[in-house]
Amino acid sequence: MTNETSKPAKSSQTSKRSTIQSGRRTPPKPAKPTTLPVKITFLGGLNEIGKNITMIEYGNDALLIDCGMSFPDEDMPGVDIVLADYTWVERNKDRIRGILVTHGHEDHIGGLPYLLKQVNLPIYAAKLTLALIRSKLSEHGLANSVQLHEVKAGTVIPFGAMSAEFIRVNHSIPDAMALAIKTPAGYIVHTGDFKIDCTPISGEMIDLTRFGELGKNGVLALMADSTNAERAGYTPSERTVGESFATLFPKAEGKRLIIATFSSNLHRIQQIIDAAERDGRKVAISGRSMLNYVSIAIELGYLRCPQELMIDMDMINRYPKEQITLITTGSQGEPMSALSRMAFSDHRKVEVGAEDYIIISANPIPGNEKTVGRVVDELLKRGCEVVYDRMYDVHVSGHACREELKIIQGLTKPRYFIPVHGEQKHLQKHAELAYAMGMDRQNVLIADLGMVVELTADKMTVTGSVPAGRVLVDGLGVGDVGSIVLRDRRHLAEDGLIVVVASIDRMSGLILSGPDIVSRGFVYVRESEQLIEDAKDLAYRVLDDCCLEHADWSTMKTRVRDELSRMVFQRTKRSPMILPIIMDV
Amino acid sequence: MTNETSKPAKSSQTSKRSTIQSGRRTPPKPAKPTTLPVKITFLGGLNEIGKNITMIEYGNDALLIDCGMSFPDEDMPGVDIVLADYTWVERNKDRIRGILVTHGHEDHIGGLPYLLKQVNLPIYAAKLTLALIRSKLSEHGLANSVQLHEVKAGTVIPFGAMSAEFIRVNHSIPDAMALAIKTPAGYIVHTGDFKIDCTPISGEMIDLTRFGELGKNGVLALMADSTNAERAGYTPSERTVGESFATLFPKAEGKRLIIATFSSNLHRIQQIIDAAERDGRKVAISGRSMLNYVSIAIELGYLRCPQELMIDMDMINRYPKEQITLITTGSQGEPMSALSRMAFSDHRKVEVGAEDYIIISANPIPGNEKTVGRVVDELLKRGCEVVYDRMYDVHVSGHACREELKIIQGLTKPRYFIPVHGEQKHLQKHAELAYAMGMDRQNVLIADLGMVVELTADKMTVTGSVPAGRVLVDGLGVGDVGSIVLRDRRHLAEDGLIVVVASIDRMSGLILSGPDIVSRGFVYVRESEQLIEDAKDLAYRVLDDCCLEHADWSTMKTRVRDELSRMVFQRTKRSPMILPIIMDV
Repeated sequence: MTNETSKPAKSSQTSKRSTIQSGRRTPPKPAKPTTLPVKITFLGGLNEIGKNITMIEYGNDALLIDCGMSFPDEDMPGVDIVLADYTWVERNKDRIRGILVTHGHEDHIGGLPYLLKQVNLPIYAAKLTLALIRSKLSEHGLANSVQLHEVKAGTVIPFGAMSAEFIRVNHSIPDAMALAIKTPAGYIVHTGDFKIDCTPISGEMIDLTRFGELGKNGVLALMADSTNAERAGYTPSERTVGESFATLFPKAEGKRLIIATFSSNLHRIQQIIDAAERDGRKVAISGRSMLNYVSIAIELGYLRCPQELMIDMDMINRYPKEQITLITTGSQGEPMSALSRMAFSDHRKVEVGAEDYIIISANPIPGNEKTVGRVVDELLKRGCEVVYDRMYDVHVSGHACREELKIIQGLTKPRYFIPVHGEQKHLQKHAELAYAMGMDRQNVLIADLGMVVELTADKMTVTGSVPAGRVLVDGLGVGDVGSIVLRDRRHLAEDGLIVVVASIDRMSGLILSGPDIVSRGFVYVRESEQLIEDAKDLAYRVLDDCCLEHADWSTMKTRVRDELSRMVFQRTKRSPMILPIIMDV
Repeated sequence: MTNETSKPAKSSQTSKRSTIQSGRRTPPKPAKPTTLPVKITFLGGLNEIGKNITMIEYGNDALLIDCGMSFPDEDMPGVDIVLADYTWVERNKDRIRGILVTHGHEDHIGGLPYLLKQVNLPIYAAKLTLALIRSKLSEHGLANSVQLHEVKAGTVIPFGAMSAEFIRVNHSIPDAMALAIKTPAGYIVHTGDFKIDCTPISGEMIDLTRFGELGKNGVLALMADSTNAERAGYTPSERTVGESFATLFPKAEGKRLIIATFSSNLHRIQQIIDAAERDGRKVAISGRSMLNYVSIAIELGYLRCPQELMIDMDMINRYPKEQITLITTGSQGEPMSALSRMAFSDHRKVEVGAEDYIIISANPIPGNEKTVGRVVDELLKRGCEVVYDRMYDVHVSGHACREELKIIQGLTKPRYFIPVHGEQKHLQKHAELAYAMGMDRQNVLIADLGMVVELTADKMTVTGSVPAGRVLVDGLGVGDVGSIVLRDRRHLAEDGLIVVVASIDRMSGLILSGPDIVSRGFVYVRESEQLIEDAKDLAYRVLDDCCLEHADWSTMKTRVRDELSRMVFQRTKRSPMILPIIMDV
């Protein structure tokens, strides 16, 4: 049953908070000795940007923050997505009052369908975030079984001894929120992913005042986004990208414009639509995920787009090229994305060439540099003009740089600081920033996966660790691909496979048929006939010896494997997987 | 037989050229109609930095420039290195007078042992380059069968109707050379990899004067390094890195210094040695390739290192940590490198921790960002202090930026311009730079792999294409891993393998044994027992049907494969490779 916010928030320009729990505005009393500690448990994704899920507990009440997923590393072939281990959530499900979701990016919501199949918990999130979650749950057939509660900036929701307040922040997707979790031991502030954008494209500027008010009243702990903790200065406003578009669109005169960006960056898409409208161009949307985001955003009013502006992909060839702006997926060079298919002439509706002006409005995420580079190269070879990161300011980050991080620290003045959302190097740089702001080293913690931390007014203590780790999803299988399967896949990928198969008469111990050899991914068999013949001969001799010695089948297999391995390595310096199969006839 | 330069070059401070062929200084007469065209054939590596091999021909004389290799992309699992296709070289071997090598980097010399096994040609290169080539040939047992000729900056060597002059340039390895190939149709200038360093660490500044002289006399075509054609301004001098070391070494006081850099960057290594000496530290070398380069460089005088400064890796633990500087491989996060092994506690001699100050004196090469990031994270987790690209100027490029590229263009004033050494985007940016310098578009060519270009005073024409492409090396096999083997490896890596094996009585058509199912890299069998059982049942039914229908074995295999594929995909959304093996008993 979908249960949309039964608690509508008060709306006022200066403060959108609606106080549901009484007494929220009273300054928290200093924690008395009888106050319990707040527990924070890092269940996933720390040290890796995204897929984070964090549990905050006070006494018998617990809350989860976010439930994301991440994409596999190159050492996980065949894996589609990576989830956190939900064992600990399941074990504590009776105490968990709900899941608070900061914003709608995959690394914050992508795990929800998988978690909710195991544990049904109510979800609290802002309108757009909720719509994206709903769309995701529908795909998994969960749309009607989960309670979804809509919140606004300023909404405060009581959860037993705790309450959670949503605070507006800026980010590369609308409706991003920070959280202030009130507990009897003090406030825990979690920034979510954020930046400070004083001239946002939609919505308002981050509610710095509220961070400051919390700071004045006393914040027990701050958990803050570390993604850009290495970068000095400020992240520019999203609006600067619009200024670049204003410069670039005239350069594309007479050509079709194709702009690739992140589907979820609706601010960016809005600016493209606005620029297209100014230039008298139609807008078409390419790529499944781009279509999904844009249609949800238009429906909910997060994108302003005159109806006559938008045309279907099937219609684009009815207009002159210079009247078209195509917004597409593929800014990360993903092999199956629309832009990649255009680059490699594999797109059913779009053929690119000298009449195309292409803007890649994104920076490559670390690890994607090469694939993006390859797409750019292909587009250039086809005669397209291509604008990418190095040339113009066609992208800004959604995360706060060091000066912004300092502002949040300075406003919240937390007793304890825990950098989150980043690799180890980002967390450490963020911690150093806190030291530079005057924090004591013992009040700053770089957490680890599975770590349980207890906070009181007096001290922050690591009190234990719980099951936490990666769960791999491949196709429909969740968790059935683990280290052994991956090791085999990597082995097969590196050197291929040799199957040795023979039938042996159980009674007489005679080889009835074979050994035959089948190889895949090893060598061109035609060019290595002699090697395969020799392998067959060797396998025969080994099996024959084994039969004479009445060796058991496990010994037989081991000896075939060892002898063939040695011979093949000597001849080729390769170590294919050798799979002896002995049929008992 | 090793035949070291029988033609020693004249040595003078201002001009180190030795004129072997008479008349080189006479300004070239305008090409008469009887003059033949110069042919340039791009045999490898264009559009990909490195592994380049280029053929220059005039009439019946041909020369090769460089013979590199490159490292495999992530879609070539198990491949060790990638070579160019040497078919065309082999077909033209009787006309090729020699191989001119610009400098000693792998992407310029790494293919030589493989080419020389097919075609024995004399090699012309500077002292250090030659020593590195000799070391490589020794590993392949070719040390005594190849003619190696040492050249110096200014050496001119006649090759039939052509001659080749070596010109000093700056780069991230000593002894880097550009080439000026004199032909009756005019000069072809090839920069090799270069930058302009007015304060080089060893050797002299690039011989800009000579480029200018050639330009005044008339250059038919310029081929120039495009690696940094996207980057504005100048590449800083290598010396600036030494200045950073001077700042960083005092920060490492009381700690062991570990510095990772490219083994071939002897200028960098010299600066580390110098800084260590100033600081009263010993120097130890870690990593096989680092040891190889350092020992060759010391022996030939390319590294100045007081003997008492250098200690063996086995000795480092006899000194206090603060007296040690370790120079190591692994600046690209290569999994088997010394630095990676230190980071993952897998190094036999070095255990890192809070007493280590680590400098990664390199930028990640595109594609390596993630592996480098992982190594940095591990080092940080162990408590090391780590300095990497973002923080200090601990690396400079070895390639010319746009202002330097303009200088070379301006000095050589070529009639035709062919940007080389770069991906498509770099080549195009370099071409645009040439247009901006006033070159006609029809006089600029972005070449393609296998392309043959003919140049006369009047025109530049693409006249054909020859066999060129990639040859993959895996272990001892050169070229026996091709697209089918790679496709199989990728398939196996993505979804693993199911082998279905059964014995069938040839006469009766009865299934005597099996079908048995063996899977690898597919699922945890224990968790998917039912699936495997069902697959076995399905395979039995299919085989049984086939036997009844007296289907031939190829039909049997196809049907088993198709039916199992369908069932497995339906149940798991995965497509493992299915390998039916039917034994005939």
